[in-house]
Amino acid sequence: MLTSVLREGIRDEVAVEEPLEIRVDGEPIAVTMRTPGNDEELALGFLYGEGLIDGPRQAGPTSELEGNIVEVSGPLNREPANRRFYTTSSCGVCGKGALEEVAVKAPRARPGPFLARSVLAALPERLSQPAFARSGGLHGAGIFTAAGALEIVREDVGRHNALDKAIGRALLDGLLPLTGSLICVSGRIPFELVQKAALAGAPVIVGVGAPTSLAISLAQEQGMTLAGFARAGSVNVYTGMERVQEP
Amino acid sequence: MLTSVLREGIRDEVAVEEPLEIRVDGEPIAVTMRTPGNDEELALGFLYGEGLIDGPRQAGPTSELEGNIVEVSGPLNREPANRRFYTTSSCGVCGKGALEEVAVKAPRARPGPFLARSVLAALPERLSQPAFARSGGLHGAGIFTAAGALEIVREDVGRHNALDKAIGRALLDGLLPLTGSLICVSGRIPFELVQKAALAGAPVIVGVGAPTSLAISLAQEQGMTLAGFARAGSVNVYTGMERVQEP
Repeated sequence: MLTSVLREGIRDEVAVEEPLEIRVDGEPIAVTMRTPGNDEELALGFLYGEGLIDGPRQAGPTSELEGNIVEVSGPLNREPANRRFYTTSSCGVCGKGALEEVAVKAPRARPGPFLARSVLAALPERLSQPAFARSGGLHGAGIFTAAGALEIVREDVGRHNALDKAIGRALLDGLLPLTGSLICVSGRIPFELVQKAALAGAPVIVGVGAPTSLAISLAQEQGMTLAGFARAGSVNVYTGMERVQEP
Repeated sequence: MLTSVLREGIRDEVAVEEPLEIRVDGEPIAVTMRTPGNDEELALGFLYGEGLIDGPRQAGPTSELEGNIVEVSGPLNREPANRRFYTTSSCGVCGKGALEEVAVKAPRARPGPFLARSVLAALPERLSQPAFARSGGLHGAGIFTAAGALEIVREDVGRHNALDKAIGRALLDGLLPLTGSLICVSGRIPFELVQKAALAGAPVIVGVGAPTSLAISLAQEQGMTLAGFARAGSVNVYTGMERVQEP
């Protein structure tokens, strides 16, 4: 979603950013800065990635506050941990704890699918981003078949939101867990994105940018294939090389 | 901070990412995924940007959990709002509310400094990023004089952390408010980064990437100059053109 601004007298397009409050049975659970649109997918993908739901739920906008509240039907699997801002325990506050937390929620990926390196390298250019092309201001996240065909793509000012939306759509379409799918993101790959991919059951995540140390450790622990710097027909594979077939 | 990984048998360098818990007088306030190093600056810059402190504080690592906890001396100005994950009121959950929240904490920027457009455009290349050059995996944030001289630069896997560290350093050095300074960031410019610049009193923020709609609205409201796409000698100015002098 784009909006027009006047920049030095010229009309220009920029990505819209607005807060979204996610409520479950009327209780506020989270606030995120996002690009409006597909808010139900965002809410469901977010809750799934936190391990708070494991199937689709009723979700829709409220009429309050310019549509910046999305209401989801409960109940949740457990009390939501308040770890983004406050934390009352030290669980997860070392890298090892963070890895263990994901391992509890997500099983280790099974072998396969097996992929040509050229398929991995080609995913970013297949990550169709209509709004990015016009504004340069949106992250993209896509879910692909093992053959490299695009199934779902979502854009957002926040890279975590773009992936939440794509996974939320997959949840609504009954496609989870994504055991045969590839995830591709338009930027760098931090821990949080690998975590979301792991919770969604995807064995492969590819990014245009660099992964972090903890992203690599998590992919390793979960038996996932992590690849970065997918650009101009080339790709760096950091973990899970056994899925990648050389030409 | 970088670490070595083996990638397909080759030694490669990636950016380190680890959780950091920020405690004030022993109470956990926030957890962020960051690149270790300058954690005291990160904690102080974060608390300043939230309006929770307005001067330097004692801060240092604890011996617990691999150094992933930083302890800051209180007291805080007010009870920390828990807005990143939970929210108990709807304050800030429309774009207008978010702008008003910043306006309460930060005065509108005064006129000046006045700058050549070429100075704005040149900031990204002066944003020396030694670890980015070796890994491609770190965001950078810099504080510059009005003449475009680099004063402080910090890198982190999180762009908000990079700016928190730079502002935390400025706080420790007695440089706040940054009324005569320019801030430059290595990526896109969302609302959150303009908010941090506003709270630090900086009248100008420049990025290599695109700004969002809410970032532009906030810069406009606060009387700040916001510029994006600063690349190859060119720059797009979205707000506060009155500070920019054409050649």
